[in-house]
Amino acid sequence: MKFGLFGSAQAKRGQGPDVDSSKGYRDWLEYNTEAEALGFYSSFAVEHHFTGFGQVSATLNLLTYLAAQTSTIRLGTAVMVLPWHNPVLLAEQAATVDLLSGGRLDMGVGKGYRFNEFKGFGIPMEEADGRFEESLKLLKKSWTEDQPWTYDGEFWSYEDVVVEPPTAQKPHPPFWMGAGSPASIEKVAERGYNLLLDQFAPPATINDRIDLFRKAVEARGRMFDASEVGVARGLYVAKDAGDRDQAIENRINGRRRVDNLAQRPDGGNKASIMSYDDTIETTAEAAIYGTVDEIAEKIQTLHDSGIRYLLFADGGSGIEGLRTFSKEIIPAFSDADAAEAAE
Amino acid sequence: MKFGLFGSAQAKRGQGPDVDSSKGYRDWLEYNTEAEALGFYSSFAVEHHFTGFGQVSATLNLLTYLAAQTSTIRLGTAVMVLPWHNPVLLAEQAATVDLLSGGRLDMGVGKGYRFNEFKGFGIPMEEADGRFEESLKLLKKSWTEDQPWTYDGEFWSYEDVVVEPPTAQKPHPPFWMGAGSPASIEKVAERGYNLLLDQFAPPATINDRIDLFRKAVEARGRMFDASEVGVARGLYVAKDAGDRDQAIENRINGRRRVDNLAQRPDGGNKASIMSYDDTIETTAEAAIYGTVDEIAEKIQTLHDSGIRYLLFADGGSGIEGLRTFSKEIIPAFSDADAAEAAE
Repeated sequence: MKFGLFGSAQAKRGQGPDVDSSKGYRDWLEYNTEAEALGFYSSFAVEHHFTGFGQVSATLNLLTYLAAQTSTIRLGTAVMVLPWHNPVLLAEQAATVDLLSGGRLDMGVGKGYRFNEFKGFGIPMEEADGRFEESLKLLKKSWTEDQPWTYDGEFWSYEDVVVEPPTAQKPHPPFWMGAGSPASIEKVAERGYNLLLDQFAPPATINDRIDLFRKAVEARGRMFDASEVGVARGLYVAKDAGDRDQAIENRINGRRRVDNLAQRPDGGNKASIMSYDDTIETTAEAAIYGTVDEIAEKIQTLHDSGIRYLLFADGGSGIEGLRTFSKEIIPAFSDADAAEAAE
Repeated sequence: MKFGLFGSAQAKRGQGPDVDSSKGYRDWLEYNTEAEALGFYSSFAVEHHFTGFGQVSATLNLLTYLAAQTSTIRLGTAVMVLPWHNPVLLAEQAATVDLLSGGRLDMGVGKGYRFNEFKGFGIPMEEADGRFEESLKLLKKSWTEDQPWTYDGEFWSYEDVVVEPPTAQKPHPPFWMGAGSPASIEKVAERGYNLLLDQFAPPATINDRIDLFRKAVEARGRMFDASEVGVARGLYVAKDAGDRDQAIENRINGRRRVDNLAQRPDGGNKASIMSYDDTIETTAEAAIYGTVDEIAEKIQTLHDSGIRYLLFADGGSGIEGLRTFSKEIIPAFSDADAAEAAE
């Protein structure tokens, strides 16, 4: 079983000489460099804009810095929101990270869902699909065409370009896509990409989605590989039940804050990530919040249902939580996989 | 006297398993990390696209990686070509580098001059000025406004945004601008930016430009500081006269290759960087190519004329050349400055 990380750093504007805005970024970098040493396989970072609380915006720059400080951890975007970017510039930036990191980039892509970001960039939400498709085509073209090409599209046009530098991974870094609805999941399989499942969906929903994805992959004559589905989950290594319950409450509040940024003024944002109940019960069920024993049990359940790749969003237990997880949990599931492989 | 670097790395696409496209980038990074240890003050990297020979395209990503490997060297762009970039995304990327590097970003900006890049991005050269001015305004706004702002411009519009993360340097990283014509130089002084002078202009022209800039700065009631003018020059530490002459010939050929990319089909590119003779004599005069003694003499002449900041474009003597320069030349000019300061 593979364990990765999923999250964001915070760098806040502030007043006065005592404010160190870089601290949030430096903490995130330390957290990730130690996570690599603790056996974590990947780190996926979000891209968000205009949040007012300092979520990571220049994701590929932050990952580039992390690349220089690490040697094995995969560097993921979760996700780059294609409608915001000139696809050729994005291809160049991503290729540069891939090249400098020795081929460690996992290119998570999405079409965006937060209303305040569409509004901020002056892009109608209705254009999200069209922009996403065109950008994706141009990313692939940029990474794979060795001869000058010309493109005249709906949103972007280029004439006689060959995009540099080349990626390290061939033909290009793997694409990862978030999906929730059956149609979206089918589409990810159709494209041949890896799948990201969100951190708030109930376990039963996750199982249904993986099942659907597996069938869709197999229906296209390919082998299904469970490590190509990254399941995001909140992680909090709690001291005791009270500590766990407080962390769950914090999680609910944090999620509501983010949902407010994403919501449209008419309340009509249909993104599946915003569709789940946020009661204490559903939150506790989906999140891997608990004592070591509770966490081991939850991971076992996920493992039993066929999940092989978890991406943890830190619920506040931080690097100490990862140390505990690395020591108490990871070895058991490496053994489980080894035993399975030997069967 | 301060000595910095100016240049590009090359990452080529190639065929076959033996091609390591990352080598050019890794060499550049090694060169720069050692340069820091050798006492070089800064490294300015170009931004270019679609060259076919792998010049750096994602400049801020490469600088981010270098930032992680260094601790004092200033990280410069020479220059970010504003018309290619969404100014808010660029502000986020640059702020991230500035934040992660502890405030070491020098933001060189330009409007672009290579025809093949305008053509590639589908941007008319006639829009260069308008795009540059609007982007510059938006960069500053992004870096300095703490409250949500809205902007409806000719090329870009944003609604209700606050751009994150904040920069480390306040109010923002220093701007550097290349300029050649008297009007452009006046404009740089008017803006209050630092000045970059190109590597091909004859020494007499450089002196005229600095003189003009000094007067323009003083006319606005500010103190002129010679370290705010970065003079780019080719550097080649030659073994002997034959070695030097060969390097000069290579320099002429390299420059012609780049000029071909920049030229318009009608031959009408009026950029000042393309206006100088490229004879052996003029090239030898402008470039700091020679034996150690010849180089010392050239630097002395530049120092005598009031220049205090040189940015070296490597003519091929590489890190060995920098080692020699650091050992044989830098101490003499530190002493000269110290003596001057004591006067």
